[in-house]
Amino acid sequence: MAQDNPLLLDAATVASWDQTADIVIVGCGMAGACAAIEARNAGASVIAIERSSGCTGTTSAAAGHFYLGGGTAVQKACGFDDDPEDMARYLAAVSIRPDEEKIRLYAHGSVAHFDWLEQQGVPFDRSFYPEKSVVQPTRECLIWTGNEQVWPYRDHARPAPRGHKVAFDGEEGGGALALRILTDAATALGAEILTDSKVEALVSNDASDGSRIVGVRLRNFGETRFIRARKGVILAAGGFGQNAEMVAMHVPILQSAFVQGSPYDDGLAIQLGAAAGGVTEFMDEPFITSPFYPPQDLLKGVLVNGEGKRFVAEDSYHSRTGLISTRQPGGTVYLIVDAEIFAYPRFAELTNQRLVDGYETIAEMEAGLKLSAGSLQATMASYNAHAANGEDPEFHKYPKWIKPLDKGPYAAFDLSFGTAVYTGFTLGGLKVSADGEVLDAAGAAVPGLYAAGACASNLAQDSISYASGTCLGEASFFGRRAGLHAANS
Amino acid sequence: MAQDNPLLLDAATVASWDQTADIVIVGCGMAGACAAIEARNAGASVIAIERSSGCTGTTSAAAGHFYLGGGTAVQKACGFDDDPEDMARYLAAVSIRPDEEKIRLYAHGSVAHFDWLEQQGVPFDRSFYPEKSVVQPTRECLIWTGNEQVWPYRDHARPAPRGHKVAFDGEEGGGALALRILTDAATALGAEILTDSKVEALVSNDASDGSRIVGVRLRNFGETRFIRARKGVILAAGGFGQNAEMVAMHVPILQSAFVQGSPYDDGLAIQLGAAAGGVTEFMDEPFITSPFYPPQDLLKGVLVNGEGKRFVAEDSYHSRTGLISTRQPGGTVYLIVDAEIFAYPRFAELTNQRLVDGYETIAEMEAGLKLSAGSLQATMASYNAHAANGEDPEFHKYPKWIKPLDKGPYAAFDLSFGTAVYTGFTLGGLKVSADGEVLDAAGAAVPGLYAAGACASNLAQDSISYASGTCLGEASFFGRRAGLHAANS
Repeated sequence: MAQDNPLLLDAATVASWDQTADIVIVGCGMAGACAAIEARNAGASVIAIERSSGCTGTTSAAAGHFYLGGGTAVQKACGFDDDPEDMARYLAAVSIRPDEEKIRLYAHGSVAHFDWLEQQGVPFDRSFYPEKSVVQPTRECLIWTGNEQVWPYRDHARPAPRGHKVAFDGEEGGGALALRILTDAATALGAEILTDSKVEALVSNDASDGSRIVGVRLRNFGETRFIRARKGVILAAGGFGQNAEMVAMHVPILQSAFVQGSPYDDGLAIQLGAAAGGVTEFMDEPFITSPFYPPQDLLKGVLVNGEGKRFVAEDSYHSRTGLISTRQPGGTVYLIVDAEIFAYPRFAELTNQRLVDGYETIAEMEAGLKLSAGSLQATMASYNAHAANGEDPEFHKYPKWIKPLDKGPYAAFDLSFGTAVYTGFTLGGLKVSADGEVLDAAGAAVPGLYAAGACASNLAQDSISYASGTCLGEASFFGRRAGLHAANS
Repeated sequence: MAQDNPLLLDAATVASWDQTADIVIVGCGMAGACAAIEARNAGASVIAIERSSGCTGTTSAAAGHFYLGGGTAVQKACGFDDDPEDMARYLAAVSIRPDEEKIRLYAHGSVAHFDWLEQQGVPFDRSFYPEKSVVQPTRECLIWTGNEQVWPYRDHARPAPRGHKVAFDGEEGGGALALRILTDAATALGAEILTDSKVEALVSNDASDGSRIVGVRLRNFGETRFIRARKGVILAAGGFGQNAEMVAMHVPILQSAFVQGSPYDDGLAIQLGAAAGGVTEFMDEPFITSPFYPPQDLLKGVLVNGEGKRFVAEDSYHSRTGLISTRQPGGTVYLIVDAEIFAYPRFAELTNQRLVDGYETIAEMEAGLKLSAGSLQATMASYNAHAANGEDPEFHKYPKWIKPLDKGPYAAFDLSFGTAVYTGFTLGGLKVSADGEVLDAAGAAVPGLYAAGACASNLAQDSISYASGTCLGEASFFGRRAGLHAANS
């Protein structure tokens, strides 16, 4: 086996080990740093190997949301009554294939995990950002970041806002701040971080009782080193959004989107895990979005496809709307607003959407957008008739966002896939147990090998189940579990 | 002015400066590090401000090619007789709008610049990698990386290989090694590097004799600081490939490609320069490519479009082929090879292309690819008739790559834009003088402001004029000139 794959070496070929630790962590981003802290706290020695010069992975590019709930200190301070069971029900309802064990652990461990993050020094304000937005521009903490209030999910679980943003003014920098604090905490506990170092291969030991991952080979500016892991190697080195071939193979839709992340999201961690016998899941599911809000008043508009028909509740989380938009015929999607919405003061904030034109009547818009005769008029007549009663029997938009669109002139924006700016990243990764063990095709743990963060598959399964904060939330939570399990193995 | 743009502050609003230096450099990648070294050598104090934690920008993701010539030590050691005039003639011939001053400086300064890089400690092997490739996988230095041997350029200037790769085994890591060495050199000379720090605004001083850039405002994990620049601010903070809105506005073709770079290529440096009155150029020109080689034997195949016609010399540099491919009707492009090429041992290296199918005859392929009857047969009959004489009167492919494709069965690969993996990055940036001065709409230098590297426009104008090594080459060369000019200002 080891001879056939350059990503997996036979320990017998390793002349000598340059360093040894109980736990070797590949990638010191959110998952890796949290794994390092827990492993150290459990008494294990830790070497974390980071490709960048420090805190410069994908976490550092994140706004800094953690999806947490069940009654966190912030939720309580802001007057939201959340419950782990509601959080679990929501996560189960929104998932493609709910992993009940992981959901239960995450929902019931969420309050304690929030407290743990604060104990490490990650700051969270006791405040609520009330508007529907993508990233709050302020240091206010709590925000609605998922589909909790969206039908049908709101019928499955009592909604609560669960996006917790790190206290940081601005739309970016919160992720970097959290990572800096957590890596400093890991270092203070005695974890050693090797920067500018790329792990190029795992090392496997073929013993009589089966093979086991016992270390890695890294490269630091041209120097090759072997690092031995007594207890386990934890892969925590990002997704595969920056690997063009893997994207083309698994999520070709992202070829037409702008892929966010860092150059280190090159799929190497997933390939390393696969070389050791690990299997993957949800590799073909992208996160994909083209947020048409903020300003939130745009949620009062309607989205129609090229047949002039609505297709989604407009108040969905933006990546739910985004994914469903890409599935419309030809990718054609228009946002339609009336003069009242268009005149809202904050409308000038709109940057992501292209105005097609203004029209005096819906009939004129229908002709202008080359929609089949009567199609858009029928859609709008029906929508307006129900909206007059505050209702949306078709998609159950939340009443707060329902109003008749009956004050011309009207405006149409082009949100079509292929025209508007869509951004995204990958969600799939190595299949892991709730303790981060990399699983093989038979469902058995690959001895000595763990994965967490974007190279693993945990709660984030697709663009519909995603909420801002799922990535950092699950990376930190399951990263901790992997570190703890490996240390106690 | 300063009041209207959040990227440009009035110095009168700065309560106090936290630090002061003669030269403040925004971004410590290839251009910034070289500017820092030259400014220090000229006696100026230097503060370089880097968003990543260290050497983790786009340069670190580069293979490590520098496009240099005119008779470098490596060219001489490998037996290539190059001349600055030939290099200048080539660069002029291949450019959209040749900047004769910059080309002259670069071509005639190239040998000395190579020596300077070696003096800083950047290692280059005295060796030649003979195959046509994208990145040589070895530490061998010299390689053909442009269109020097491609018609019509070979008729304008005597060809020579000018890609100089940093001595580093492997296809990646050379850029990181060079950057580490150069930033260490800058630090050793006394330049101060502030890492994890993002410059968010320039500071302008409105004096009686006109305004001048006198400093910057930075943010380091939530802390805001003002850094004063006595002599000048040098923007060296990357391109705009990671700014989805700017890509959509300027180079929408890259929305359908995989954009390489780092998250810091977010266009901020260009926006800062524009806020200060700078203008841009070549913003709408992408680097875009879908390399169909290596193995180099594939150059002996032919590329045809959806009309069954050839459209480019197949031995062009891959980004020339790439750009011209995107311009074919519907983006349709096929690579056609015969049994002999297909049977070459290295054919298994082919990963980027999708095999459509194999066909016994060209007629069958024509039908299989749904090309109009007779179109491909006519193309191939004509190609083969001339190829039998070692000629290609249509596109003047270099004789080395010409052979009749007359041994069936045949295979077709789909290289169509929208199907194959295309990658790219941005090339445009701030318009600058040969000394890196940011220029305004009237062509005058913006006092106190310089730009170099990917946020500036120098030699790399489009996908046709590009060669591997143009980016690091011009970033280092014109970065040095900016540092020197600012220090002496």
